[in-house]
Formats: sequence, C-alpha cells, structure tokens
Amino acid sequence: MASLSDLPIRDDLRGLTPYGAPQKHVRYALNVNENTHPIPEDVARDIVESLARAVLTANRYPDREFTTLRESLAAYLGHGLGPEQLWAANGSNEIIQQLLQAFGGPGRSVLGFPPTYSMHPIITAGVGSTWVAAERDADYEISPETAVRAIEQHRPDLVFLCAPNNPTGTALPLETIAAAYEATDGIVFVDEAYAEFMPKGQPSALTLLPGRERLVVSRTMSKAFAFAGVRLGYLAADPAIADALRLVRLPYHLSALTQAAAVAALSHAPEMLAMVDDIAFQRDRMVAELPSLGFHPWPSEANFVLFDGVEDPQATFRALLERDILIRDVGIPHALRVTAGTAAETDFFLESLASVTRR
Amino acid sequence: MASLSDLPIRDDLRGLTPYGAPQKHVRYALNVNENTHPIPEDVARDIVESLARAVLTANRYPDREFTTLRESLAAYLGHGLGPEQLWAANGSNEIIQQLLQAFGGPGRSVLGFPPTYSMHPIITAGVGSTWVAAERDADYEISPETAVRAIEQHRPDLVFLCAPNNPTGTALPLETIAAAYEATDGIVFVDEAYAEFMPKGQPSALTLLPGRERLVVSRTMSKAFAFAGVRLGYLAADPAIADALRLVRLPYHLSALTQAAAVAALSHAPEMLAMVDDIAFQRDRMVAELPSLGFHPWPSEANFVLFDGVEDPQATFRALLERDILIRDVGIPHALRVTAGTAAETDFFLESLASVTRR
Repeated sequence: MASLSDLPIRDDLRGLTPYGAPQKHVRYALNVNENTHPIPEDVARDIVESLARAVLTANRYPDREFTTLRESLAAYLGHGLGPEQLWAANGSNEIIQQLLQAFGGPGRSVLGFPPTYSMHPIITAGVGSTWVAAERDADYEISPETAVRAIEQHRPDLVFLCAPNNPTGTALPLETIAAAYEATDGIVFVDEAYAEFMPKGQPSALTLLPGRERLVVSRTMSKAFAFAGVRLGYLAADPAIADALRLVRLPYHLSALTQAAAVAALSHAPEMLAMVDDIAFQRDRMVAELPSLGFHPWPSEANFVLFDGVEDPQATFRALLERDILIRDVGIPHALRVTAGTAAETDFFLESLASVTRR
Repeated sequence: MASLSDLPIRDDLRGLTPYGAPQKHVRYALNVNENTHPIPEDVARDIVESLARAVLTANRYPDREFTTLRESLAAYLGHGLGPEQLWAANGSNEIIQQLLQAFGGPGRSVLGFPPTYSMHPIITAGVGSTWVAAERDADYEISPETAVRAIEQHRPDLVFLCAPNNPTGTALPLETIAAAYEATDGIVFVDEAYAEFMPKGQPSALTLLPGRERLVVSRTMSKAFAFAGVRLGYLAADPAIADALRLVRLPYHLSALTQAAAVAALSHAPEMLAMVDDIAFQRDRMVAELPSLGFHPWPSEANFVLFDGVEDPQATFRALLERDILIRDVGIPHALRVTAGTAAETDFFLESLASVTRR
C-alpha cells in the first residue's frame, strides 16, 4: 500500500487535507446548516413516485438539458425568469466549479470577502485561479464603497458575494451588488444559498438581473427545501451564461433521479417552504436569548447564528458534543456557529450552552 | 439578452461548441451505447424501495465517504479488492475529471491513443492539461512496443488507455498496460467502461493492480448495469489514489439517491448482468453479418460495432434516421458505429442498413 507522497500528485496539493466537517452521528446535528425538518410525508410520497417512473428508463442517459427541471426552477423563482435563464448542477459547489471553469481557471482571479463560504476559495484553487481576499467593514458588512474600492484595487476576473453571508448571517444590500457590477468588467456571482430565510419582502439579487448579463445569482435546494441529500444547486442569469456553462459541464452531469426528485419537490414548493418560517423564528429566538447567556450573536438572515464571546470555543464545542450536540467552529476567534433547527432542538441547545459555559 | 461573445469567457473556450450527441426521440436509439434492455421489474422495485428510504433523510447531507457503496462496489468487482480501494463519482466523466484535477491540471500532459473515447481530450482541456495524441498500430491495436515508444517520446504525466476501446471495440492486451506502467513515472489510467462485455475468462486490468500504485482502472454502471440515467462511474486503485481524489472532489459529490440506487442495483448484480450475454450475442451477430452486406466491421469486445466501407456515412446516417434508427458518426472516414441492442433491434438495423445501402 502506497502513501499519498508516493504518488505524482500536483505540487499545489501536496500537504493539503481534504474538506471535512465531522460526520458524527449525534442526536442534535446543528453544524452544517441542514434543514432539520424531514420532508413532509405526502411530498415524500410524490417524490418517490416520480423516482419510480425515472427508474423505468434509467437504462437511458438523462436529458442533458434537464428541460423540465429548468422550467420548474424558473416557475419557482418567479421574477419573470424563463427556463433558458436557469442552470442546475450537483449542489451549488458544482455550479461554482463550472462557473470558474468557464470564466476563471488558470491565470484568472476571484475576489471574495472572508469570512465567507469556505468552499469559495477551495474551488477557486481547484481550478487554478487565484483567490484574493478583501476586508469587510465592521460587523462583517460590505458597503458599496468598500466593494468598489476592493475591485478597483485588485481588478479581479470574478467577484464572489454571499447574501446572506455564511458563516456570519450578514445581509448584503442590493446597492453593494449593483455598485460591484458597475465597477468590474468581470462576472459578479451572488451566492444566495440562504435567500429563503431572509425577512419577508426583502428583495433578492434576482431583481437586479435585467440588463446585467455578467451577474449570476445562485441558489440551492439543500436548505429551504430540506434537500441536502439530493444535491441540487442552480443559478439564474442571462441565457448566455448557461451557454458558457454548456462548454465546460460534463455531459449528462445531472442524473435522471436528481431531475425527477427536484421536479417533484418543486411542485410542492409552498409546503416545503412552510418550514422556513419556523426555522427563522428559532433563529431569531437564539439571537434574542444568547445575550442573556453572556454571548454576542450577530444579526442573521440565514438559518444559523454566529455568536462570539466564547472563551474557549474548542472546549465549548467538546462539552456540547458530550451532550450529543454538534455545532461548528468556523475558525473565527472566540466564536461558534449554530444551525437553527426545531423548537425542541433550540431549547436543548440553549439550555446546554448555558449549562456548559456557566461561570 | 447577451450573446456568448459579450461575456468575459476564457479565451481557450471562445468559438467552441458544446458536446452534443443528438438527443432525438427515436424508436431505435443505437447511438450512445446504452443498454437497451430496461432494468428487470423486481430489481426496479428494490431500487425504488431503497430510494424511498433515502428520501426520508434527504434533508441531511449524504455520506461524504459513500462507505456502503464502496463496500458494494468492492464486493462486485472481487479480485481481492477492499472498499478503501474504490472511489465513485457522477459518471466516469467525473472520475476522469477528478483524476486530472489531482494528477494533471495546468502544465501537465495526458497521452492518449485516438480514436478513443471522445471525452478524454475534452476533459483534459477542461482542466488545463495538454492532450498528446499517439498513433495506434494497424486495426486500432496498441502493442507494448507502440505504447512504450510513445511514452518515451512524449514523457506524459498521465497515460490514458481504453480497454476495450471506444469507438472501435478493440481489445487491449494486459502486456501493453504493464509495459506502459513500467515506462512511466506517471499515472496509467485504464478506462474499462465496457469490460463486462469482454469474452468470458479474459482478464481485466484489475488483475494488474497489486504492486502498481500508479495504476487506475475505471468502470461504469451505465452500460452493463443499464444505469446510464443514474450516473455512477467508479475506479479501483491503491487507497492512496482515493486519498488524492478526496483533495479535489467537491464535498458530498454523490447524492443520497445515487448511493441508494447503486447499492440496490449492485445487490442484484447477477440478474442485472444476465442481459450482457444477450447483448454480446447480438454484437457478434452484427460482426458476422455485416460483411455479407458489403461492410467491414472491426472485431469488438464492447456493446457496439464499428464498421467501415460506408460510401457516404452522413447519407447512410440520415437514411437510417428516416427509419427511426439513430446510430453514430464518430468522425472516422467511411465508418459508422452502432450499439448492440435486443435481437429485434439488431434485426431491424441490419435489414434497414441493407435496404438503404443496396447498390
């Protein structure tokens, strides 16, 4: 048996360790921002029926253009979008990788604003592009001026924004996105993985798409749709963006099962999204109650809360794990991130946190 | 609405057109080497039950290590392989892409022997590696000497072999693989997508794995398992190869549905593979009968036949399409490729070909 160092691996990969949120079986898994509510039973039944039909022709390659799925996604998003403006892949990670293969790659650069989704720099490096990190304002915000200044300084080929931001939950004003777009000739990518958890009536970056052919807005079914296991990320943009991705996507990248399951779930959008309000309520409860435990939570528009004031995050992480609760150390000093789950999960988390950190 | 040329796409993609085997709805689809036999009904029922269980926890991310699937694949392949030697992805295209991200990428080169699987050079270009084409011997064969000579001349970082070869069906001797391995310090990749269709008792490149940590053998469930719609490619190699791929794979790249469907199908391997003998019989029938129609078929160990002696391949292609038969023009002068299907499909193809090319 050989070891990794015996193999002719690329030099830039030597010494790296793989992405690895711990895969522990715990009762309270509040670490990877999953939707802790299972899919409603009647929706699950419809999904299984749709899968059963797909299995009957699984000997054939799937529709390479996933036409029905693009129609379903366009209808779900609204905003006057047509199916030709939609594109999907196996999770938004693959959306990002395809976007970087088409518009990034070797010799090109991506500007991001850490702390942000940890896969953004990893996928950037994976396609040979350079990741350039710019500073945020206080409280993890990004003003239009801050975005424009960073773009003018670094002249990136792509600008990555995350709205609301992960792992901080911070909102991103549309003015910042619009200003970033004006300041660059490159692609502006807005990762809206958690958009459904934003306050009602708050506009999405989708409203900015008309007339902006270099703007790309991505979403996922992992969070609001409780579909992390199905791996369905997607984007909305000018149809020319989809044409560009057709040049780099692997043919038949979306399986017939993925297409069938996603179409069935989207036909139940209102029921699937009914859980979103409950989750937002628990998130707001954590933000309201954490200060009384001596912590400082950041305002969050996503399905998680980042809080600091944790004396020894690793010790708190381990003490919670002993109580069968898994949360996330995202590498921000004295801070931890917790997913908003059900009322019972939130109760148990808050009680346990109080108990393990009581001074 | 913008056009592709308005976007800041990579220079090396400008002017390209996407991969595109025609997606036509015809009665006789014999163009992309699918298994034309649907999945047996009782197996389909088991797969759906397995999917139904997976949907119940689809709100959670899938097992990033797809442990059960790797165990099932190891048990299916035999040859003393353990699950730590297996790796899987969304089709063997993604297997190849991950392998190139780890061991190829910008500044590295891949040696191949066209005509071969058309995605090999495309994926190579997609990760920024250089594709180097070497010559085959007569009748598309590759002797050990020919392989070694090309490796010594080009000093590639990876050597891509296809056994049996697509689109020619040509067998590849193990001696050629072993000699190629000795001649390089790089990765030797053997694409065995059609291995199950080889004559009984003919050894696979899997037999060469012990002691060769740079040898990678890939398979797919698309062909023999009638699972093209599910997108499951996999490889067997030294466990260190899987460790390298963990550095470049997108986290959770294999959905819970893909894992569930593949595990269920693999538990019915004998039944799924019962179709293989029928298909090989029809393939051999085409090779036997095509000469009497005035064509020259190449001997094939896969589920398709390449034949030349076609005066005007595009005219023959169109005439067959008018009869609702879709086959493949693979760009070899005066040649066409046809998938071996059921007895009825083969009958109708041979009759139609005779009729449209009668002189």
